[in-house]
Amino acid sequence: MSDQKKFLLSENDIPKQWYNVQADMPIPAEPALHPGTGQPAGPSDFAPLFPMELIMQEVSKDRWIDIPDPIRDLYRMWRPTPLIRATGLEKALGTPAKIFYKYEGVSPVGSHKPNTAVAQAYYNKIEGTKRIVTETGAGQWGSALAFACQQLGIESKIFMVSASYDQKPYRKSMMQAWGGTVTSSPSNETAAGRSILAGSPRSPGSLGIAISEAVEIAAQNEDTKYALGSVLNHVLMHQTVIGQEAVLQMEMADAYPDIVIGCAGGGSNLAGISFPFIPEKLKGRPTRLIAVEPEASPSLTRGRFAYDFGDAIGMTPLIKMHTLGHTFVPNPIHAGGLRYHGMAPLISALYDAGIYEARAYHQNACFEAAVLFARTEGILPAPEPSHAIKAAIDEALLAKETGEEKNILFHLCGHGHLDLSAYDEYLSGNMVDYSLPDAEIAEAMESLPQL
Amino acid sequence: MSDQKKFLLSENDIPKQWYNVQADMPIPAEPALHPGTGQPAGPSDFAPLFPMELIMQEVSKDRWIDIPDPIRDLYRMWRPTPLIRATGLEKALGTPAKIFYKYEGVSPVGSHKPNTAVAQAYYNKIEGTKRIVTETGAGQWGSALAFACQQLGIESKIFMVSASYDQKPYRKSMMQAWGGTVTSSPSNETAAGRSILAGSPRSPGSLGIAISEAVEIAAQNEDTKYALGSVLNHVLMHQTVIGQEAVLQMEMADAYPDIVIGCAGGGSNLAGISFPFIPEKLKGRPTRLIAVEPEASPSLTRGRFAYDFGDAIGMTPLIKMHTLGHTFVPNPIHAGGLRYHGMAPLISALYDAGIYEARAYHQNACFEAAVLFARTEGILPAPEPSHAIKAAIDEALLAKETGEEKNILFHLCGHGHLDLSAYDEYLSGNMVDYSLPDAEIAEAMESLPQL
Repeated sequence: MSDQKKFLLSENDIPKQWYNVQADMPIPAEPALHPGTGQPAGPSDFAPLFPMELIMQEVSKDRWIDIPDPIRDLYRMWRPTPLIRATGLEKALGTPAKIFYKYEGVSPVGSHKPNTAVAQAYYNKIEGTKRIVTETGAGQWGSALAFACQQLGIESKIFMVSASYDQKPYRKSMMQAWGGTVTSSPSNETAAGRSILAGSPRSPGSLGIAISEAVEIAAQNEDTKYALGSVLNHVLMHQTVIGQEAVLQMEMADAYPDIVIGCAGGGSNLAGISFPFIPEKLKGRPTRLIAVEPEASPSLTRGRFAYDFGDAIGMTPLIKMHTLGHTFVPNPIHAGGLRYHGMAPLISALYDAGIYEARAYHQNACFEAAVLFARTEGILPAPEPSHAIKAAIDEALLAKETGEEKNILFHLCGHGHLDLSAYDEYLSGNMVDYSLPDAEIAEAMESLPQL
Repeated sequence: MSDQKKFLLSENDIPKQWYNVQADMPIPAEPALHPGTGQPAGPSDFAPLFPMELIMQEVSKDRWIDIPDPIRDLYRMWRPTPLIRATGLEKALGTPAKIFYKYEGVSPVGSHKPNTAVAQAYYNKIEGTKRIVTETGAGQWGSALAFACQQLGIESKIFMVSASYDQKPYRKSMMQAWGGTVTSSPSNETAAGRSILAGSPRSPGSLGIAISEAVEIAAQNEDTKYALGSVLNHVLMHQTVIGQEAVLQMEMADAYPDIVIGCAGGGSNLAGISFPFIPEKLKGRPTRLIAVEPEASPSLTRGRFAYDFGDAIGMTPLIKMHTLGHTFVPNPIHAGGLRYHGMAPLISALYDAGIYEARAYHQNACFEAAVLFARTEGILPAPEPSHAIKAAIDEALLAKETGEEKNILFHLCGHGHLDLSAYDEYLSGNMVDYSLPDAEIAEAMESLPQL
């Protein structure tokens, strides 16, 4: 047999603490501001929406935060996840680089999202929450939350964007199989939904509207809280179990990474793979950290680092982040998880400080990379991590040119078994390669709040 | 944390040999007969369709057959697969039994099928085959073969039943992503297809017709061979890597199984998990081996042990097996992989010898078990292994009644991420619970060939 391909850990190697990058920020991230007063938002501002333990994690500067045993117990359902050397892809590229990928597609929902969903459900459970409400687009996050709530014995209610609810019923069935209540948004159950339906009875919905509905329900019901699948500091921190395992596994492979790559939408999947490599980088180890975003939603590469709303409508606290303006609506690329106008404040601040690089790719180039990966490594990737694959391939080809034996690590955050229609579109030559004119960004930028 | 949940092996533990149960048959399986002469079929009869090494494996009595290194190298893409203790399910049932499942859903195609697909593609490759042709219903086997051929650099051509080709395009896209050529069957490319289309231009196709087309192409082209995804002796043998790993893993768990359970369609998935436990059973260790079939296609529980054709039309050699008659067309249950009129000759002979038990379940009961499993263990199972889950639950509840601490092992041969519409049907209360009248079986039995 050729070189070792898979690097596996035992249950005992599941991290016992989350790594909190807030302890190591070169420049601390700036606080969220109350949307009404413009003053820093305090814990009490968030208390109607989140359990107190998560609010405390959101602002903690402790470097390590213990993972409660019941959460580690749930992690065991799919963790530790494998680190795999892409020997087939390396061979196809003829590169001297070693390419590794951390694979989160083995989780019950097929992505990394449950890492934070079970943590959030747990803290809600012990603080007495009876129901968690959230929004979902195509359904990745909604299914992770439904799964987690099912495990903890909490009800889940998911507002699913109407267009997806009707056209992509598969994720809906998955959420329902895990006991979730799925509501097409806009709905008649909220004032926000009714106001939209009054003006547009057949509205296809949007993530922004669904967030408004979910937040409204949580704010009005004592026993109900809200949950978010990315962007927030505590969400990113929960995902660091991925990178901590990868640190151990890259040691097993005797291949400390020269480059760590993740796709970036809200930022949690990139944070998960890369944050645990930051302490060594700050000590001078020259690992490059690369964020890869879609050309259709390039908040790092073409956005501005400014205070903006987290949602599309302007209800949330203001957060300092790289943003395209909260009214920006990305083109309907298949990588739905990357269609967000902003970027997590922590990633944004680290990018601003030069800790991260960023680049953007067009949709077709990513699917080309995904198909090459599927043909050489077997696993059919989701559209989102195909962005990371494209970057890994480009770096490996660069290493081929220069003859350098780089160690490249990327995050394969999910499989594409629920995205096969996108492959069909690509393989039949019908995929649109959306471009984004500067004027469109400039227009959305005008929605940035004036402070 | 509670008891260990996952039992993982290293790459070095991937079996180095396949276990050939033909060495241990209490009564040897009877030979295949030439359909024209009624005489035992020899290697030359099969040579137009299969490479010689597979033909030799088909009739070998050697207990162990070496797995070539290049095949083990490919197995490393997903093997060893995990053995998982169903702690969540045990708790929900309140059973003293320990329930374990071997999970093959981690493979690139999401099922156990690649275990034989890569082996078959390999032997074809070294004997000079340029193209492998096969048939597929909903697409599980076709995608495994496309994947395997892609890995070995062979072309693959898959005749996909027309109804699935049009209504379930996802598997088609998967096959194409792996470079497979997918043709809707019946097609104009074969005499068999043209004869069907002449009589019925809009025929929805059937597995029987697709087999005829694939075999015709293979028989007429020197560089093209045929491949089958179940039933044959060598196919079952390739799947024994599953059970061999499970033997090691159950030892790690210190829980030799009292009961081993697999669903049974053609028989390869059941053989894979259970054959490696047969030598100890023959020595007197009292492990029960249970085949679980759908009530809609009960070849073991309601069929006859007789010579019959392997295909629906009557082109193949005659094989001695449990059968409902080759013209039997099972109702359209979602467990498409279990919709076969017969049962592998080796499983049939072992059932006849009392080595296996068998039972049949209705569709709705299996989905009820699948949803309970998804809610307690997280993994959403494919419809086929939900039959095994139902049996495991029934045995665990029996153990609860009797207070016995049984060790139950079942095979979770695939995930259900491509079967979510079936879950939707079940959860919305629209699933048909097909029954099978005796008269329908009796009618199909009339198609049994007279020898």
